[in-house]
Amino acid sequence: MPILYNVNFINPFLDAVLNVLSTMASVEATPGKPFINKTRTSIGDVTGLIGVTGYASGSIALSLNQGAILTIVNNMLSESYTEINDDIADAVGELTNMIAGQARGDLSKLGMNFKASTPSVVVGKGHKVKHVSSAPVLAIPFSTPDGDLTVEVCFSHGVPEPDTE
Amino acid sequence: MPILYNVNFINPFLDAVLNVLSTMASVEATPGKPFINKTRTSIGDVTGLIGVTGYASGSIALSLNQGAILTIVNNMLSESYTEINDDIADAVGELTNMIAGQARGDLSKLGMNFKASTPSVVVGKGHKVKHVSSAPVLAIPFSTPDGDLTVEVCFSHGVPEPDTE
Repeated sequence: MPILYNVNFINPFLDAVLNVLSTMASVEATPGKPFINKTRTSIGDVTGLIGVTGYASGSIALSLNQGAILTIVNNMLSESYTEINDDIADAVGELTNMIAGQARGDLSKLGMNFKASTPSVVVGKGHKVKHVSSAPVLAIPFSTPDGDLTVEVCFSHGVPEPDTE
Repeated sequence: MPILYNVNFINPFLDAVLNVLSTMASVEATPGKPFINKTRTSIGDVTGLIGVTGYASGSIALSLNQGAILTIVNNMLSESYTEINDDIADAVGELTNMIAGQARGDLSKLGMNFKASTPSVVVGKGHKVKHVSSAPVLAIPFSTPDGDLTVEVCFSHGVPEPDTE
């Protein structure tokens, strides 16, 4: 059965980002309009990545720019970091885990059961992460007062006709 | 049951790298001595990443420097690329898939069955990829005539006492 990137699929990720950032970091994120990322490439200063298997095989990426992640992690850890360091990389891994975990919980209620790998975190200003798959890449952008972040999801059983309007 | 990073676990990855590079790209890689990467961080100019679930949860990373991947992909595709581009990112995804696939096949013969996510590929000179997990990171380095590459494996049921001698 193909995965439609419709509202039922998008909302678990959208809700998870808002909930995790609010709960863990007291950061209120504002969602933008989801879109299909034809470049297939996440761009950020730090990116958490989780692979999934099960109902479909794919990847979930949480990419943030430096302003966004500094505020989030400083709030989480009561720190005042001014650049991306090892603690921040670990925190991005944990945030990605929590967001993917909450979204997987909601998706399982819809009959889509996924298992998740442990997270990897990419650090490097302006790095790019490309999702290698035949499935479209769904991007859900968010803004925060201090910077932007994007969740990107690419599941191999997706279909080329997205419903993200 | 914990995963010991012993020769039975290392050889499937070592053999897969040698075999895939030789078969796909006519590149003869020379393995170095496996070690536990205490920085938990893969460094490269391009990195293919695959998440795994099943017998254990974890990540497999194939990091290459520019010299190594240019020769490998130019041989694979009969091209003469001089910098890392989109085709090279896709090829790194496929190589990571093939290496992980062959290694998983060998590991399954030992009773360790893994499922793999689709690959993601990180591009950006000198980027770092951190494995976020409590398990040790096993690094298997290789050299080729035109540059170096490393396979790093971090499986969450690993144990802190590696046997890589």
